[in-house]
This record gives sequence, structure tokens and C-alpha cells, in this order.
Amino acid sequence: MTDPEPPSARTRIRRMPANAHYDRATVHAIVDEAYVCQVAFADEEGGVHCIPTACWRDGEDLVIHGSNGSRLLKRLADGAPACVTITHVDGLVLARSAFNHSMNYRSVVAYGSFERVADADKPALLDRFMDHIVPGRRHEARPGDANELAATTLLRMSLREAAAKIRTGGVNDDEADLARPVWAGVVPIHRVFGEPEPDAGVTCDVPAGVCALKGS
Amino acid sequence: MTDPEPPSARTRIRRMPANAHYDRATVHAIVDEAYVCQVAFADEEGGVHCIPTACWRDGEDLVIHGSNGSRLLKRLADGAPACVTITHVDGLVLARSAFNHSMNYRSVVAYGSFERVADADKPALLDRFMDHIVPGRRHEARPGDANELAATTLLRMSLREAAAKIRTGGVNDDEADLARPVWAGVVPIHRVFGEPEPDAGVTCDVPAGVCALKGS
Repeated sequence: MTDPEPPSARTRIRRMPANAHYDRATVHAIVDEAYVCQVAFADEEGGVHCIPTACWRDGEDLVIHGSNGSRLLKRLADGAPACVTITHVDGLVLARSAFNHSMNYRSVVAYGSFERVADADKPALLDRFMDHIVPGRRHEARPGDANELAATTLLRMSLREAAAKIRTGGVNDDEADLARPVWAGVVPIHRVFGEPEPDAGVTCDVPAGVCALKGS
Repeated sequence: MTDPEPPSARTRIRRMPANAHYDRATVHAIVDEAYVCQVAFADEEGGVHCIPTACWRDGEDLVIHGSNGSRLLKRLADGAPACVTITHVDGLVLARSAFNHSMNYRSVVAYGSFERVADADKPALLDRFMDHIVPGRRHEARPGDANELAATTLLRMSLREAAAKIRTGGVNDDEADLARPVWAGVVPIHRVFGEPEPDAGVTCDVPAGVCALKGS
């Protein structure tokens, strides 16, 4: 399950290399917990942009979508080199010294370029997106009709050239600071789903997939 | 409080312009709730990178820090154009149709370039960082000593050229879908702080600032 080597020179993590992970399962798990990624790319003049957008995973690919008119998608569909970043902050690591403060986190940085998804593949990928948002959702919501599908661009990028970086665990204080009368420890941070708020006129029960989010 | 106009052409939001905000208070509030930003920049060969890193705000500036040896910081300190992105996902918007699904979120995209913080200004800015992580923390943790300060690079970038984009509220379904027997509504997403986990040997009480996180 562990790939000991980075897939390319630019994905090799140099700071805190012990926190680096290059195996597929670790990268996929971090991507699967994200609703949004940040996509960085350069425009025709070399200006760098970084735009947040919804994302999901299909096998080894990251998928994004949007309106056909989106400048982001048009530029990316032309094959502009991209760097996609996902970050989950899992905790504050409060040390006895300011210098040793840290955070627990999981991040993925993936390099590649997007390509346009063929029309024939859109419905299945959008079903995956629905189920990424809430498992089972694709069986509930009305699927896109021909006009909606035609108005939507989907792009996919391989996650093969990706690195994950993860910090977990507790405080790493200097020996000399351990006797200080300072509270030190970890404050975990969780993503929590609140009570579902039904739209006006909704009479059916909250679906099982939505209920299950609360327990996740 | 509202700046009706974007500060530059590249910050003007074209998709869903009604969700755009360019006023300082809105940009600052989104930045202040972030522990981590994503920094996009191009390397000397034009390759685009997007790296997550801790951040905090000092007035109109975003501040990041790291080891002097960090490639990210070295490249940014040379004045490479940067694009900084912060995203908070606040909810899943589940519509009756797949097409009208959405998310509630708050994001900031800021353009600029970083500059190195002078040594004399580092201690006060690192105090701000401590208090950004946990209010009052700078009065508790041992401040950086001369070696620690010398080993740390701080960079600042103005947030003047920034745009915020915010979606709030409920479902926007098509009229024709309203009678469908599909649950529709919003599932809020919250960031929640867990029970503080003290480091081995800690005997003092959990500080008030840490306790207050749980209520936030």
C-alpha cells in the first residue's frame, strides 16, 4: 500500500519528509473527504491563478465541472499545466514554546493537466458527483436533462503525480521547555454536519444518506 | 463597508457576480477564520505550484512563515507573483434536480507578491500568529529566542487586490421540479473544536482561550 518513492521530482516533499505519503490509498482518502479543491494554473500571459471549485474522484482521476462559459474551465480544457491542492486541518498543536506550535493536517498536491470529459461519459460521472456529495443522492435527485448536460463542462485530471503530506500526533517540545508551567496539547478540529434544513414545501423524510452524514 | 467595485480587472468575479464582495471587512473576516491558505506561484521555469501553508492577518496584509530553507518562501521572497486562496465550505445545498445542487461557501482569492518581514518586526507578528491560533496564547507560550527567530522567515502580502465570493441560503430549484417527491434542503457544515488533549506531564488548567474555542 505504501509507495516509498514520489512519482516525480516536483512531488518530492523536502520539508518534513517523514510526513510525506505517495501511495494511492492515502492520496485517494484525502481527496475523497474534500468537497472543494484549489486549482492553480497560469493564464495566457503567465499570470498565476488559484480558484476553488467543487471536485470529486473517479478512480485515478480528479473531476471538476462548471458552466461551458467558465474561463477557468476553458483555460484548463486547453491543457494548461495545473496544480491542484486539497487541505484538511485536523487540529491545533499547542506547544510550550511558540516555535514548536504546529497543526495536524492532511493535504494533497497534484500536478497534471485536465482534459475534457466526452459527452457520453458525463451522466455517469455526474452520478458519481451526486453520490460524493451524499451517498445515494443520484437515486433521489432528477438527473440532468439534455440541455443541462450540454451546458456543463466536465474536466478530469490524473492523480498519478500527487503527494500527500500528513501531520498527526502530539506536541514536540524541546526538552528544556518541558518543565514550563504552560498548558500544551492538541485541540482537535472536526468537520461536523448540522441539522438538515428542509426547503419550503418538502414533505418527504430526510434521506438515509443525509442522516448518515451526521454520524460521520 | 461595501466596495461596489473590484480592486482590479483580474479580481472581478464573472460567474455569479451577485455572490462577489470586494469590501475589506468581508475579505478580512474570511481570512481571519482560516488557519491555512493555499499559495500559488510559478517557479523559475514557469511551472505552477500551489502549496498549503499556515497564515494569519496583520491589518491589510496576509502573513506566512516557515524555515529559511523553504523553497516556497525563497521563491516568494524574490517577489514572484502569487495568488492566495482561502475556502470555507459551509453547507451542502441539495436540490430536487442534480443540476441545481450547490454548496454554501466563503472564499477569498488575493493577488499580489510577498515581501520579507524585517527582523525587527518578526516578534510582534509572531505574537499575532499565536493569538490567531488561540487568543491569549502569546502570553502563555515561551516566545521565540534569538536562534528560533533567526531561523524563521516571515513574508507578508497585501490583501488589497482581493475578491471574496460567498454563497449562503437555500435551494434554488426550477419551478417545474418543485412538486417532485424529493427531499431538498441545506445540510450545514461546521468547524468544531474537540476536547483538548493535554500533552504528557501537563498539570495546569486548560487556558481560557482554548476553552473558548469549544464554544465558537
